[in-house]
Amino acid sequence: MTEHDWNIPEPAVLNRVRTRLEASATEATEDVLATIVSVEGNAYRRPGAKMLFAADGTHSGSLTPGCLEDALQKAAADVRDSGTIQYVTYDMMEDDDVWGLGIGCHGIIDVLLEPLTAQYQPAVDAFANREDIAVITVIDSETGVHSRGDRAYYDPVDDRFTIPAGGSDNWPEDALADPARKMATHGRSTVLTITDAGNELTVFIDGVAARPELVIFGSGHDVEPVTELAAKNEFHVTVVGFRGGIPLSERFPYADETYATSPGSIEDVISLHDRTYAVVMTHNFVDDLLTIETLLNSPVAYIGLMGPRERFEQLLGELSESGATVTASALDRVYTPIGLNLGGGSPYQIAHSIVAELLAVHNEQEPAHLQSHAGPIHGRVAAEILKEDS
Amino acid sequence: MTEHDWNIPEPAVLNRVRTRLEASATEATEDVLATIVSVEGNAYRRPGAKMLFAADGTHSGSLTPGCLEDALQKAAADVRDSGTIQYVTYDMMEDDDVWGLGIGCHGIIDVLLEPLTAQYQPAVDAFANREDIAVITVIDSETGVHSRGDRAYYDPVDDRFTIPAGGSDNWPEDALADPARKMATHGRSTVLTITDAGNELTVFIDGVAARPELVIFGSGHDVEPVTELAAKNEFHVTVVGFRGGIPLSERFPYADETYATSPGSIEDVISLHDRTYAVVMTHNFVDDLLTIETLLNSPVAYIGLMGPRERFEQLLGELSESGATVTASALDRVYTPIGLNLGGGSPYQIAHSIVAELLAVHNEQEPAHLQSHAGPIHGRVAAEILKEDS
Repeated sequence: MTEHDWNIPEPAVLNRVRTRLEASATEATEDVLATIVSVEGNAYRRPGAKMLFAADGTHSGSLTPGCLEDALQKAAADVRDSGTIQYVTYDMMEDDDVWGLGIGCHGIIDVLLEPLTAQYQPAVDAFANREDIAVITVIDSETGVHSRGDRAYYDPVDDRFTIPAGGSDNWPEDALADPARKMATHGRSTVLTITDAGNELTVFIDGVAARPELVIFGSGHDVEPVTELAAKNEFHVTVVGFRGGIPLSERFPYADETYATSPGSIEDVISLHDRTYAVVMTHNFVDDLLTIETLLNSPVAYIGLMGPRERFEQLLGELSESGATVTASALDRVYTPIGLNLGGGSPYQIAHSIVAELLAVHNEQEPAHLQSHAGPIHGRVAAEILKEDS
Repeated sequence: MTEHDWNIPEPAVLNRVRTRLEASATEATEDVLATIVSVEGNAYRRPGAKMLFAADGTHSGSLTPGCLEDALQKAAADVRDSGTIQYVTYDMMEDDDVWGLGIGCHGIIDVLLEPLTAQYQPAVDAFANREDIAVITVIDSETGVHSRGDRAYYDPVDDRFTIPAGGSDNWPEDALADPARKMATHGRSTVLTITDAGNELTVFIDGVAARPELVIFGSGHDVEPVTELAAKNEFHVTVVGFRGGIPLSERFPYADETYATSPGSIEDVISLHDRTYAVVMTHNFVDDLLTIETLLNSPVAYIGLMGPRERFEQLLGELSESGATVTASALDRVYTPIGLNLGGGSPYQIAHSIVAELLAVHNEQEPAHLQSHAGPIHGRVAAEILKEDS
């Protein structure tokens, strides 16, 4: 029987890719990695979504709600047999073109299917090291230098291109660096046509951003559903507890990392940076006070504090009495009471509201119903990112 | 080893109560049911939250994030030994009264602990039949007729009070019916003091509303995370699929009920009423069309449709051509694209956004950050409900 992990988070797909590469005795596995390159209209998944067709018959991830997976499996078998990358367009409009507009089973989806080989290692390493990376693949080339399937990687931190061993060189790095950096850091993917010495080169830039990092301070049992829902929503989850007892890693199986420390020694065990989302739920005033003080003096992107607003004001009063200064920009990053106002009161409902807020803040969305928004849901985003001032 | 299901949804606690009552050979189990009566300030859980201390040492549910559970366990043992209901106030301010305002471990919580007996059966029956009920318990009485722990149940549909066998009669039904109905239908709980023939009677009215009912139309694998997150957020989940294959109950273990039918025969298998939340994600235009037509002509509270707005407009065009009329009030209940704009694109992120919208609509909240709200989060709600015009 084949096993289909349709709904596992994208990081779990990449983790599976990593495991399969590691387990392979040779440079080339017999697995096939499929990635959505582009979609017409409002597809279920967005460009960059990945699905692994492993040689053992297991599937990880999904590109559609199920309508295309049989066809993809056949295409993957072709790619496995031929050993060459393929770029396939699935025009599901034709099946039912009376209806025109559609989703999932009625759209046009371009998919890149590639044999999973050591060539993909830079993407896997970046994932493991929690770094952003852009995976660049040639779709069409008039240059004579490149051909379909040629691959380059771009590391936005070092502003550096990596070409896999045996790969063709002479990439138009100047033209690619800026869009590759934007896609990598935003975790978006797009097709880009650039003119290189008078000839058009069309590439797919697949930005694979590091997971946003959630650090939860606290070890009450209410931490558990927050770790679960955050992990399922693709956050890298760290739990920092200030009390002994049962090891935190046992208590919070959804956490990627756990640390037991004292509230005054947080930065001895973890580093806080501008991609850190911090949730404070120790339910202890002194622990919260010391944690909040550390967080306000750090560059973290988000500080969510459980409890009423008045309690935070009292924390601020204590900080002020102790001579600490708190900047307005630090206060702007504080969300208390934590979460969106979804109205629920159970542990899962509270966790759902917290993770909904984390997603909205991370994706720079002001909470609203999607129905109040005109236009496509997640189309055009990559195009808008490219237009941003560098 | 004892087993603690801290974070299970409230319906799972009630289900456990039901199972324990069923399994008991006698009228009285040796289990103890604890219910939050009131909280001062912003507690983690709200009044009505329940926790079962079973005689076998297992615990289901939680009243705090862990700070009170040891004390509650001792109190439960007392109640088990004495066989009498107890009303206990936990003043955790005293532990740390420098800090004043607090949550969870620094508030004042009143808890009712009762021996679980057949007396509780009406609440359990209402839960099993998916009906609202108010559980009324005397806290203090000057009437001479009642004493602490006396119990009555109120059924808001039949406007009927039920007194457990052997219980005291002569309840001030006229004064209790309206608040009991409001608490039952809203699923809120409050303490109420009424004057009965010149004497004060203080009761705890614990409204246990039927779970909101979610019906998902579709059977793609993207339905799976929606069933999971909705069930964890306390919806009663039904999946209606229009395709054969692997039995839906196997594919969607989180669903309470599953039905395979045709899109023209939906109401042959389920009833649609004003507490039904409908999510349409068949990814098939004709199936969606027939489903939406049925839903628009039904009293369902919410119709969420996956896909772009334009697709819904095309569906409406088809309906119009076929001579169907669609009222403005029906259209007001349509949410498409479905979900809140949390910005995620993975199956879980899409499901998270859908369930966040379901919670917000069910709880009559306009999506926003809680931080933008002044005042307590979920305090005062019961008081506001009582003030509503009857």
